[in-house]
Amino acid sequence: MWTEHNIMRTIRVRNVQTPGNLGCLLVALGELGTFVGEISLVRMDHEHVVRDIVVYVDTHEQLERVVEVAGGTPGSELIEVRDDVLELHQGGKIAVRSRYPIDTLRDLRRIYTPGVAEVCRLIQRQPEVARRYTAIGHLVAIVTDGTAVLGLGNIGAVASMPVMEGKAALLESLVGLSGIPILLDTTDPSEIVRVVQAIAPTFAAIQLEDISGPRCFTIEEQLIERLDRPVMHDDQHGTGVVVTAALLNALKAVDQSLDRVQIGQVGLGAAGLAISRMLMHQSSRPVLGTDLDQAAVERLQLYGGTASTLEEIMAKSDVVIATTGAAGLIRPEWVRRGQIILALSNPVPEIEPEQALEAGAAFAADGKVVNNVLGFPGILRGAVDANVRRLTTEMYLAAARAIADSTPDHQIVPSPLDREVHRAVARAVARTALETGEARADLTGYFADLE
Amino acid sequence: MWTEHNIMRTIRVRNVQTPGNLGCLLVALGELGTFVGEISLVRMDHEHVVRDIVVYVDTHEQLERVVEVAGGTPGSELIEVRDDVLELHQGGKIAVRSRYPIDTLRDLRRIYTPGVAEVCRLIQRQPEVARRYTAIGHLVAIVTDGTAVLGLGNIGAVASMPVMEGKAALLESLVGLSGIPILLDTTDPSEIVRVVQAIAPTFAAIQLEDISGPRCFTIEEQLIERLDRPVMHDDQHGTGVVVTAALLNALKAVDQSLDRVQIGQVGLGAAGLAISRMLMHQSSRPVLGTDLDQAAVERLQLYGGTASTLEEIMAKSDVVIATTGAAGLIRPEWVRRGQIILALSNPVPEIEPEQALEAGAAFAADGKVVNNVLGFPGILRGAVDANVRRLTTEMYLAAARAIADSTPDHQIVPSPLDREVHRAVARAVARTALETGEARADLTGYFADLE
Repeated sequence: MWTEHNIMRTIRVRNVQTPGNLGCLLVALGELGTFVGEISLVRMDHEHVVRDIVVYVDTHEQLERVVEVAGGTPGSELIEVRDDVLELHQGGKIAVRSRYPIDTLRDLRRIYTPGVAEVCRLIQRQPEVARRYTAIGHLVAIVTDGTAVLGLGNIGAVASMPVMEGKAALLESLVGLSGIPILLDTTDPSEIVRVVQAIAPTFAAIQLEDISGPRCFTIEEQLIERLDRPVMHDDQHGTGVVVTAALLNALKAVDQSLDRVQIGQVGLGAAGLAISRMLMHQSSRPVLGTDLDQAAVERLQLYGGTASTLEEIMAKSDVVIATTGAAGLIRPEWVRRGQIILALSNPVPEIEPEQALEAGAAFAADGKVVNNVLGFPGILRGAVDANVRRLTTEMYLAAARAIADSTPDHQIVPSPLDREVHRAVARAVARTALETGEARADLTGYFADLE
Repeated sequence: MWTEHNIMRTIRVRNVQTPGNLGCLLVALGELGTFVGEISLVRMDHEHVVRDIVVYVDTHEQLERVVEVAGGTPGSELIEVRDDVLELHQGGKIAVRSRYPIDTLRDLRRIYTPGVAEVCRLIQRQPEVARRYTAIGHLVAIVTDGTAVLGLGNIGAVASMPVMEGKAALLESLVGLSGIPILLDTTDPSEIVRVVQAIAPTFAAIQLEDISGPRCFTIEEQLIERLDRPVMHDDQHGTGVVVTAALLNALKAVDQSLDRVQIGQVGLGAAGLAISRMLMHQSSRPVLGTDLDQAAVERLQLYGGTASTLEEIMAKSDVVIATTGAAGLIRPEWVRRGQIILALSNPVPEIEPEQALEAGAAFAADGKVVNNVLGFPGILRGAVDANVRRLTTEMYLAAARAIADSTPDHQIVPSPLDREVHRAVARAVARTALETGEARADLTGYFADLE
């Protein structure tokens, strides 16, 4: 999600020192539909001010107009346009580091031979200590075949690497796990399963990413079946968790509760199905679901959902969740008074939140609020710490509640950069693992002081 | 190699402040065959000195005797025995790090969405820039099935992880590459080839490690055939490079040259065959080879070597290289005056260097001098920097010469911790790639100032 305005540039502009000059420029940029990010002061003298302005636009044509406007607005002069994001990607965003310096023969003998030999033999005798004495305990494979990347579609595994590295960087930065992108040169589901299974001993958990449906369902199912460690397709369950959290908060805002409302799911792809499964598990009520693909509807029915139509869903549901990719699908006149509408497709939702509210919705949000970054880091951290065999819907729901409970007043979800949220999610997942008998790790002291 | 004395402990001892007390203790430890490493002063008062002494032994029985002796030597008191190496392995020796902090929304938008989208699309249009704008350009897979680990044998992939992490830590520390251990749950050669091929897009190079022969030959060959990036089985070519370097220095020490001597290779496993191939390529003279396994001898013949016997090799060769794993195989009476003998098996060589010299050898060394750490980091760095399709024997020989040329006087090889040696190896490999038309990278400026 969150793919709108995906061209980002830094423009350096010199303004004449006259109050209102910057404002004029920003107004002119705004008229082009430009989103303006950070503005920083580069230098200033008695005549001029030089500033770096970060601008976000959708197309290169729009960027050209930004350049024209920035250079042509009276009192403004364009000095340069920089692609800071591309610069930052030079050399990639992640690196593997040695946790110890290797400067002396003593270091070498401890980190490599002969020191390692005894540790190897210890693990050979007691394989369960491998998680303690190797990096396996914090390594997470981020596996993709590049078939359904962000809003970009089937761009291939190598082109998806910036996304995978971004996830790895977030895993480290937010919860201290070591994410390893694994780019596959195959899109064959059984081959993917075989390859991931073959390399699985290296990792404490497997995160599947950006694999297109319906292949993603069988791939995840088979890996869960075959492996003794957590496997999570983020586009299903990560999204499911964050949407559930947002919905819990929306219900609270309008003073309703999940087990009393009728939920309708429009679009039953990876995210839509996972959302429905989680909500049905929590509410014990069938979700009304629809999709252009009959197989997708049948999958929902397998999990206890009810086949429906867009019209029926709009007419009967208290909560409508749309994940169709079809911009503007929901007409304002279909919205019922008091409905909660989460129209999550990016970059353009099925109905704009303002339109939905105007049409009588009690609560409306679009995909910008649903940031997967809120989910996967803490979920994986908790699962790895508890050493669960598999992630369960209970664990996902616990993660959703933890996110909902961590949300400041008057927001629908918390900031994805708040480390405390991720700790709360990890704790919730681990606690659920403990309570449901799924934890294989000794969690003594874990909840008192989570690292 | 280098697996002797692989139990390492730190003993903390309190000595009475009498000159000679420490000496007495060390003599007593020496009589047990204990190798003593660092000795550090912990504290000292007018009566006592407390020291940490690092001891290396071969067996746990020997360790028990060390404990008895350290506690029972007059004037010495044993305070504790610590396993510092195991402590150091807690949590593993490597971690994946984000190269940038992620603390603000701005960071998030640059490192993850929406910023990544444009970089993804750029790579989709021009796949060749992936090496520049992702970590692929410095990621190296360190792949093992755990079938032939150090001197430990077939201990399985998971138990080999401390070795693989050690290699990864060395890659980062010595040449700035990001090594990713990949532990396989299969030992089937065609499955290994398929799996490595499937994940290869992630990596700039593939290092095969500790895979038993003769499987290692076909696995490496098939991967070289199928992949467009360097694949190196370290136990073959890494060892081959370092032994060749040592031999070049040995020949220099006795004022001989490689193209004028008869070389005999005793033992044609992974290391033995690679050494022979490299030496034959350099000298254009057939190596005499022998092995208990007829298939191994036939492999040597394929590369131009001559089938021989141990007796004939000892009788006719100016240089004898032994990699058999058979301790004491070479009897002193077989050694000819003026021979160069490299008896490389660990922990006990085919003939002790002292014995060989006594029996008339002009030069003798054992496996302790051949440390693979001298080879693989620089070889891989150079291959990755030059973006070669494959590593060639010319490149390996250039690496060997670079190591030989970097060796201080009166040593047989340089220190593996001397970063300048690794830079020299990388430069030599890249220069050879350039000169032989194998370099696909622009190496302008590379030799002036290697990062």
